[in-house]
Amino acid sequence: MIISMKLHSTKQEVESVCERIRERGYKVHSIEGEERVVIGAVGVGDTTNILESLEAMNCVEKAVRISAPYKFVSKEFKNTRTQIKIRTHTGEIEIGGDEFVMMAGPCSVESEKQIMECAEAVAATGAKVLRGGAFKPRTSPYDFQGLEEVGLKLLAKAREATGLAIITEVMSDRDVSLVAEYADILQIGARNMQNFALLKTLGSAGRPILLKRGMSSTVKELLMSAEYIVAHGNPNVMLCERGIRTFETVTRNTCDIAAVAALNELTHLPVILDPSHATGKRSLVPPLARAGVAIGADGLIIEMHPCPEKAVSDGAQSLTFPQFSAMMKDLAPYIKLWKAARATELAAV
Amino acid sequence: MIISMKLHSTKQEVESVCERIRERGYKVHSIEGEERVVIGAVGVGDTTNILESLEAMNCVEKAVRISAPYKFVSKEFKNTRTQIKIRTHTGEIEIGGDEFVMMAGPCSVESEKQIMECAEAVAATGAKVLRGGAFKPRTSPYDFQGLEEVGLKLLAKAREATGLAIITEVMSDRDVSLVAEYADILQIGARNMQNFALLKTLGSAGRPILLKRGMSSTVKELLMSAEYIVAHGNPNVMLCERGIRTFETVTRNTCDIAAVAALNELTHLPVILDPSHATGKRSLVPPLARAGVAIGADGLIIEMHPCPEKAVSDGAQSLTFPQFSAMMKDLAPYIKLWKAARATELAAV
Amino acid sequence: MIISMKLHSTKQEVESVCERIRERGYKVHSIEGEERVVIGAVGVGDTTNILESLEAMNCVEKAVRISAPYKFVSKEFKNTRTQIKIRTHTGEIEIGGDEFVMMAGPCSVESEKQIMECAEAVAATGAKVLRGGAFKPRTSPYDFQGLEEVGLKLLAKAREATGLAIITEVMSDRDVSLVAEYADILQIGARNMQNFALLKTLGSAGRPILLKRGMSSTVKELLMSAEYIVAHGNPNVMLCERGIRTFETVTRNTCDIAAVAALNELTHLPVILDPSHATGKRSLVPPLARAGVAIGADGLIIEMHPCPEKAVSDGAQSLTFPQFSAMMKDLAPYIKLWKAARATELAAV
Amino acid sequence: MIISMKLHSTKQEVESVCERIRERGYKVHSIEGEERVVIGAVGVGDTTNILESLEAMNCVEKAVRISAPYKFVSKEFKNTRTQIKIRTHTGEIEIGGDEFVMMAGPCSVESEKQIMECAEAVAATGAKVLRGGAFKPRTSPYDFQGLEEVGLKLLAKAREATGLAIITEVMSDRDVSLVAEYADILQIGARNMQNFALLKTLGSAGRPILLKRGMSSTVKELLMSAEYIVAHGNPNVMLCERGIRTFETVTRNTCDIAAVAALNELTHLPVILDPSHATGKRSLVPPLARAGVAIGADGLIIEMHPCPEKAVSDGAQSLTFPQFSAMMKDLAPYIKLWKAARATELAAV
Repeated sequence: MIISMKLHSTKQEVESVCERIRERGYKVHSIEGEERVVIGAVGVGDTTNILESLEAMNCVEKAVRISAPYKFVSKEFKNTRTQIKIRTHTGEIEIGGDEFVMMAGPCSVESEKQIMECAEAVAATGAKVLRGGAFKPRTSPYDFQGLEEVGLKLLAKAREATGLAIITEVMSDRDVSLVAEYADILQIGARNMQNFALLKTLGSAGRPILLKRGMSSTVKELLMSAEYIVAHGNPNVMLCERGIRTFETVTRNTCDIAAVAALNELTHLPVILDPSHATGKRSLVPPLARAGVAIGADGLIIEMHPCPEKAVSDGAQSLTFPQFSAMMKDLAPYIKLWKAARATELAAV
Repeated sequence: MIISMKLHSTKQEVESVCERIRERGYKVHSIEGEERVVIGAVGVGDTTNILESLEAMNCVEKAVRISAPYKFVSKEFKNTRTQIKIRTHTGEIEIGGDEFVMMAGPCSVESEKQIMECAEAVAATGAKVLRGGAFKPRTSPYDFQGLEEVGLKLLAKAREATGLAIITEVMSDRDVSLVAEYADILQIGARNMQNFALLKTLGSAGRPILLKRGMSSTVKELLMSAEYIVAHGNPNVMLCERGIRTFETVTRNTCDIAAVAALNELTHLPVILDPSHATGKRSLVPPLARAGVAIGADGLIIEMHPCPEKAVSDGAQSLTFPQFSAMMKDLAPYIKLWKAARATELAAV
Repeated sequence: MIISMKLHSTKQEVESVCERIRERGYKVHSIEGEERVVIGAVGVGDTTNILESLEAMNCVEKAVRISAPYKFVSKEFKNTRTQIKIRTHTGEIEIGGDEFVMMAGPCSVESEKQIMECAEAVAATGAKVLRGGAFKPRTSPYDFQGLEEVGLKLLAKAREATGLAIITEVMSDRDVSLVAEYADILQIGARNMQNFALLKTLGSAGRPILLKRGMSSTVKELLMSAEYIVAHGNPNVMLCERGIRTFETVTRNTCDIAAVAALNELTHLPVILDPSHATGKRSLVPPLARAGVAIGADGLIIEMHPCPEKAVSDGAQSLTFPQFSAMMKDLAPYIKLWKAARATELAAV
Repeated sequence: MIISMKLHSTKQEVESVCERIRERGYKVHSIEGEERVVIGAVGVGDTTNILESLEAMNCVEKAVRISAPYKFVSKEFKNTRTQIKIRTHTGEIEIGGDEFVMMAGPCSVESEKQIMECAEAVAATGAKVLRGGAFKPRTSPYDFQGLEEVGLKLLAKAREATGLAIITEVMSDRDVSLVAEYADILQIGARNMQNFALLKTLGSAGRPILLKRGMSSTVKELLMSAEYIVAHGNPNVMLCERGIRTFETVTRNTCDIAAVAALNELTHLPVILDPSHATGKRSLVPPLARAGVAIGADGLIIEMHPCPEKAVSDGAQSLTFPQFSAMMKDLAPYIKLWKAARATELAAV
């Protein structure tokens, strides 16, 4: 932690700042420059709120943190990849390991026929996880809000028929135990990335979590939200880049693909890319999916639908079954390169 | 609603689009240009998801909504200002009427001494509402999370002592009834603006709501979230501009002050400005507060603290008591101009 | 300057960094924490590129500047407001002094009739400066590009007729001397804020400059661009906030009004607000203009037109003459408060 | 073009709008809904400024363009890829064809030794184009501004020694002919993307242009700037995605990689990705480079330096020679997949 004093601070002011920092358990060194004094604080003290509190002092110009504010999710804490295992009645899926994981399905579960058709189309390509929303976060109160528990039951039925694992969104701490009863992975939507009441409850959900990055959240905030879940008891968190909000409108969001590579440096948690929400446009999904494999994501989550123009939500970004299947073929040689690179990396550890 | 077909669409494709729109209850007109066909749809049909569904058709270039997607909160629905009344044991406060409303207090309720001192300092300036967080949304799981119900009780005590109304944040649908027992106004934080489970519950909270704009939410999304609350039964919603997230770092957020004026054109709901979170810097709060009065907000919400450098949160943006009191004096002539303009406006209706 | 070393850096690495910093003329102190070493560098050394160069070293985690990278434009360099004087044949205008300065006129100079009518309408309200574009930066090559020198001559004619000072944009270093022949103030558009070839030429332009903030430029970058002009010989620079680009679309840009207050803390240069480009919408200009006066800008620049719906550019944000005149009346009591505050401030220096 | 009238517009108002549109040469159809009238305008009329001018009418709610505002650069105008040929003394390079093009070199030309070493390292990997800045756009007036013509001569010398083509930046319309004398490709930096005086001059530069996307420019604005160059006579334009400015700070900019795929749908011009500026961090360059190949860019432009920590600019994002060479090996199988896909595409035309 570095504290820069204002120009012409008195000795007394410098000492008062040092004193406050020492109280929190840090070692303090001050450096007198010609223009101003800079104070360095090191050690493992109580960081709670200390930066804000120091900046609130009139004699302080700026207080800057040097170390990361998260711990459990950082590579410095744990240097090997977290591998999340999901067991279904037909076998085991591992995320963060030596297999690239494809998750796919419709935006919303709409009917038994629709979700069963999707599940079969997904399974037919070799993908391992079925997505489908039962609780739907919608900007408008007048839009379709999801089938709720009925939807969850349909997902469970699709799992039984295909052996696919199920991922679905939970929107409120009130619903966590209900959704966890049916789903293999709980998805937290972008709008809830900083719903801290929800994050705390996920600590004891007993299911892996896919945490989507908020539309205007930084990579560090995403890691802090993951830290909430881990610190409350659940180490099985995947992070998901799904596009951030910028001024650009040619795509629905702006895919911050470099965040995938940055996360791979900062954390041991698996990272999933969502090219459907990132672009909002069906034709852009396959090229972005290729890029996601190439940059080293651990998996993709893709929207598809038997008849996108009749979808109750996200039709414009959903692939048809033939498009999805063609994309899977297109990705195959990239996934082969991915596996070779991952195998080399895992062997080196 | 306007649908632009792709170049060289066939007659059959145009007809298929028209058919789909008619099914939803709209009147349809198509216009054949030299290059492409454009279809106009008018009337009061079922808008659920229709734009996305049309854009999912291969022959459609673009589908654009013309009318606003919200209804109850719009000026077109109700042309006179919504006035929200709060009764305390010492009188009545009206927000959205002919009085400019000042809300102030600490970021977090920390102790009885702290909140009672704040309440007295607030009441001494003639401000009418005391703010103070009992449930705190914090980016880090290791930061102070609030005194919860203990904090609510302290707020109630401060109300009793001063006659100030109480505003405090609620973070989860689970806590709405608890917080509503104590608070006069429920505050929804920026990170929860699209926590739809929470918004629905607020419909039956029986208390006025102050809905803060999300860090990356548009003015229209803010109105849609307000529409959720109103459509679920609670018409007493205030909107709050508290700064949005941009690339600029000289302030904590970027105050979109023109949104206040834009909201005054679009909605009948009261609009409150939060210059503390908008700037994150104590010295910028008073000038921005002046601007908020001048542009026509209905009130301000301000952070202050007996000793900002010891505050457990938001110290850097909290005013001291003397600073708060000086700001109130500085604002007085601006509020006088505000009242004259408002009186003229209300007389004209 | 603070340099944070990577975890587990060796003594030798620390010394190599210290050595490199000393070479640039700084005094160096290193602090050994339990986890990592932090190096502080103080003094007045050669800052050219030093941060980037240090961060390029493998053993360095992060290098952070503490002092501002600009000098001449900072309050630390000169603590009293820069007052820019412009002499016309009817008197003197001072910007940054005890008068609030109104600049107004059409987006583009279109014809003699149009600019003369505007000039008279501007002068009639007591405003002192006429704006009007002769060289027009247009997103599309097919849009009207301005009357160029013909436009400049018309502006000069309008000045002669009314005594108003003239402000107009210059888009290329090639045109600086031509435009400076006619104009009293040279305007640099947002898209050219970092056209460094142009900025350098302005150093010897012999005219005051109004430098508009770039659409995605930070306050500090704006100050750095002003520093270019001052460092190249021209101290008479005004800064202009005209809205930045964000995700919000209800206004054309997002007015970062707090930047006006922040600039007043950071620099002695005058600050002008442009509510026309900031909002892009006529009806929002008067309320934002009030806010601009209240927050303490030194002046406003406003677009108006005899017949906005026939304007060749920016019609939607241009006021009619009656609207402009009504706004000036509406602003009068705010300007009175402004003058009282400014008089007090200037008396105190 | 679609014009939506305000609620309760009179017949006369509708007719006045229609009249104005017809004057510009369009066919007009109006649609009467229950709530409001919508007017469609089709045909090939004079689009100059018409949207703004219509929105300036009081009775108009909104005017929306349906067709793209650019013509020459669009796929609708020319459906086959533009292939740009550059002849050096050792052969011909084609950009936009069946070869993936690598451009690499230092940020700035610093000395003969430095640029010659770079050129040899670039040539050794099979890359075809050498980058190096002679005129440098720097945020600070106190930073190194480039060797100017001396730098150009050194680049020419490096070309002679290696057969690499040369790309270098031009910052002012005044310098276009000088830079064009030496360089094979003229680079326009992000800060000059809307320097319209410069864009016009490039129309007659006689050299291919690499146009970098502005930090806050949309994909459509990038295409409009390219349209400027093409419309002024120079069809050989490459577009370059180099990251946009957002709230995220973990990378220097935010790489909008989906823009590459979107541009491939919208335009026939080649698209180059710059992973160095997009990330600002050396370790993130290779993974992002892979993603760039996978998504279908036509080439990459990469910063490298013999000794990044001594570089006068952009050291933190420059690869060392061994890192560059390792990256080239890492990319090889991805480029092989790229070539197969491109060959199939070109064969299909």
